[in-house]
Amino acid sequence: MIRIDLNSDLGESFGNYKIGMDEELMKYISSANIACGYHAGDPLIMEKTIRMALKHGVAIGAHPGYPDLIGFGRRNMSVSLEELKTMVKYQVSALKGMTESLGGKLQHVKPHGAMYNQAAANLDMAIAIAEGIKEIDPNLIFMGLANSCMQEAADSVGLIFASEIFADRAYTDEGKLVPRSREGAVIHEPDMVCERVLEMVKHGKVKSINRKEVALKADTICIHGDNPAAFELAVRIYECLAENEIQIRALR
Amino acid sequence: MIRIDLNSDLGESFGNYKIGMDEELMKYISSANIACGYHAGDPLIMEKTIRMALKHGVAIGAHPGYPDLIGFGRRNMSVSLEELKTMVKYQVSALKGMTESLGGKLQHVKPHGAMYNQAAANLDMAIAIAEGIKEIDPNLIFMGLANSCMQEAADSVGLIFASEIFADRAYTDEGKLVPRSREGAVIHEPDMVCERVLEMVKHGKVKSINRKEVALKADTICIHGDNPAAFELAVRIYECLAENEIQIRALR
Amino acid sequence: MIRIDLNSDLGESFGNYKIGMDEELMKYISSANIACGYHAGDPLIMEKTIRMALKHGVAIGAHPGYPDLIGFGRRNMSVSLEELKTMVKYQVSALKGMTESLGGKLQHVKPHGAMYNQAAANLDMAIAIAEGIKEIDPNLIFMGLANSCMQEAADSVGLIFASEIFADRAYTDEGKLVPRSREGAVIHEPDMVCERVLEMVKHGKVKSINRKEVALKADTICIHGDNPAAFELAVRIYECLAENEIQIRALR
Amino acid sequence: MIRIDLNSDLGESFGNYKIGMDEELMKYISSANIACGYHAGDPLIMEKTIRMALKHGVAIGAHPGYPDLIGFGRRNMSVSLEELKTMVKYQVSALKGMTESLGGKLQHVKPHGAMYNQAAANLDMAIAIAEGIKEIDPNLIFMGLANSCMQEAADSVGLIFASEIFADRAYTDEGKLVPRSREGAVIHEPDMVCERVLEMVKHGKVKSINRKEVALKADTICIHGDNPAAFELAVRIYECLAENEIQIRALR
Repeated sequence: MIRIDLNSDLGESFGNYKIGMDEELMKYISSANIACGYHAGDPLIMEKTIRMALKHGVAIGAHPGYPDLIGFGRRNMSVSLEELKTMVKYQVSALKGMTESLGGKLQHVKPHGAMYNQAAANLDMAIAIAEGIKEIDPNLIFMGLANSCMQEAADSVGLIFASEIFADRAYTDEGKLVPRSREGAVIHEPDMVCERVLEMVKHGKVKSINRKEVALKADTICIHGDNPAAFELAVRIYECLAENEIQIRALR
Repeated sequence: MIRIDLNSDLGESFGNYKIGMDEELMKYISSANIACGYHAGDPLIMEKTIRMALKHGVAIGAHPGYPDLIGFGRRNMSVSLEELKTMVKYQVSALKGMTESLGGKLQHVKPHGAMYNQAAANLDMAIAIAEGIKEIDPNLIFMGLANSCMQEAADSVGLIFASEIFADRAYTDEGKLVPRSREGAVIHEPDMVCERVLEMVKHGKVKSINRKEVALKADTICIHGDNPAAFELAVRIYECLAENEIQIRALR
Repeated sequence: MIRIDLNSDLGESFGNYKIGMDEELMKYISSANIACGYHAGDPLIMEKTIRMALKHGVAIGAHPGYPDLIGFGRRNMSVSLEELKTMVKYQVSALKGMTESLGGKLQHVKPHGAMYNQAAANLDMAIAIAEGIKEIDPNLIFMGLANSCMQEAADSVGLIFASEIFADRAYTDEGKLVPRSREGAVIHEPDMVCERVLEMVKHGKVKSINRKEVALKADTICIHGDNPAAFELAVRIYECLAENEIQIRALR
Repeated sequence: MIRIDLNSDLGESFGNYKIGMDEELMKYISSANIACGYHAGDPLIMEKTIRMALKHGVAIGAHPGYPDLIGFGRRNMSVSLEELKTMVKYQVSALKGMTESLGGKLQHVKPHGAMYNQAAANLDMAIAIAEGIKEIDPNLIFMGLANSCMQEAADSVGLIFASEIFADRAYTDEGKLVPRSREGAVIHEPDMVCERVLEMVKHGKVKSINRKEVALKADTICIHGDNPAAFELAVRIYECLAENEIQIRALR
């Protein structure tokens, strides 16, 4: 039976500020990427989100980001490699210990926002992140963008890599994401999204924006729940996978 | 042979800001309380300080504080017990994982500044901290003020307690610290400080500010290095202990 | 014609985090207390909120708070008086300049959350705040709790004071707020709330929790919009005042 | 008589963390760029530094930076133009009000660190900053790098520009700074530094790294005091200017 992981970024509230439909999403995903207090999240919210994931049998991952709460970790920052590595270690370590304290086990690490995007295109940064993850626990899975530097970094450092695809995004002929600024970068038609998801999951390939066939390893699909439309699409993908007898299961 | 631990707060620099004589102090102490990024410290500095402690064979402890960098964690904050517990878990967990990643082992936890002072006088807060420590690792030692709520909290939760004394501070008849605002609270004469240290370490007692004899368990002595005078006193205490054949050794 | 000011705390979003029904509330209030980047708010949100207030003809006030984003400025902090004064100056000054840059004029200052509550009960703190306000602009109105230290501080420093009442809160025989922890502290029945508002606004008095008549100067009523129920009550109070031919107008 | 301004970045301490030789530098400079709480500085330190500048008759400028305390504002951040403009307004406005509250008058604005460097090379960013400054006060002087986008931005927006030169840095044939990473970028020989300063101040030109003569308008020289060697060089430059009867005077 074919299987796939559905992951989502959760625990991104902060203090008095609430964001995301965490409770609702838990029913549809198999892996949760939990914010670690840098770009979002705080200890109370981390604890609550870990408990929620454990209750729903959802695998837990760390979701480290830049120390930029005001920008929600979405702004590129020119950090040194040593600093990048230690800030990953700090965040992963904090979430790992808290997860274990509640009887869970950390499955993976997925960088957030600008850290994810910069590492996807910069091998040195991707390696700094991979080393940081490995130093905390060599059994952690590095979740990152399909066909990116992150795959290469995981391989070179010796971490298992989970190749992430985006259901509603167009890909270039090289299997990379078409930048959001380009026309056609985001696919809005739900039927089209589902069709593409099935092709990626079942056959490991997708039609590029130029209608060329591109190889794309799909270990996990990124699901959003920060607005009702995104959540609706998430449910749609979930149902489409179920109807096609594709098993939704965490990475391990 | 009588033995005692000497502890000091280290790793309290932040980004571009340098504070403390960490490198110099390492030669005289047996336990380092390393800041965890809330009241002071950042991942790069934590990593560097852990390495330094490992190099000098100094035992490593977490030094969690309030999220109040501008106040250096010295301002009382009215946090909820649940929040207090999770912020301790977060910080201890971060430092524990980073320490283990470098081949070390976390020995103890000593709260910082206002968190320390509030917990010394408030059993509920002390218990919240103790529970947080225990949930991360039940083998961690809770280092806290002699004759305070922290001892009681450690006992009730089932953690080993390391009773901390202050060499240059006067004590009340109940074995509590005389508030700094009261005259005579701080003892400035180095010979007098050394004499008191010896009495506390060798005989487990001290003369109170009213010249009454008070019992005081001394597992560890707090040493400061944030200014040259403090550092000089630290060296003096170290030498006085050595001359009296008292072994300076970490808690375990 | 009798008149009253309706004020509300606005601009309390932060970066990616949205909070409050600012746009909706603007139609019902005459004064906006805009967060200044410490407990909530950021420069983009401040600018946007100032513009919104100007568009709706709502008077603008600064709403300074403690530097405690994670606690939303609701946690008591033991700051020094000098620090309190300068943090008020900093925040008021930032909002004042931005308001003037957009063609507006700052009307008042209302401290937020824990800073408000601590100053209501501590004259030294209230004076530190009043001095900070006056040093930035002696024409600013100090908005604070009726029958509290803030009134006294404004008087002693020479600032105009706007006495704030809470429509849905019970008062003691001394005209102070009954603490939320006590039974009967919050009045939930909208008709009762309206009746009390009218008595306070028209006659400057209210029935205490012990059913004694208490004098209470009502210059402005605090209106909340952080949840739909609060917003509904706000609209209700607005309509009740209109029906009773009480004019809703800013302080000047 | 020829005149020149000497400026220095001051007030960059934070809470418990002290940095810089502010008190000593005050005797040698004519303009102080005071940090505004984003990359460094806090309200207490701002107030103290303003008082110090007033006491020494040193002109006061705002020194806004990125909200990146951990990186001391030295890391590039990809902020939007709107955000950049409002964060400049916020910081300039805060310092302006505090300066006026103490009887002073804000003379200029000089962006800090990465904000300075990015604006020197990016006209849109430089314009966003210039607009922010102008909206707070059109009489403020924009202090920025000689021969950079900042000059162009000041001109296009209608602000007076103060052209800043660096005494110990090499210039390209285009009159731009040679990047620090290139050999020969920093001039270490004090005599050579002084000789170059005199040529720039007296004749408005300098020898480029390729020994070509380049025009360079020198309104102000940047002086550092973050370490004893930098401070010594600052004093040397001061004395050299005095010996050559060049008057050290603020911009206005």
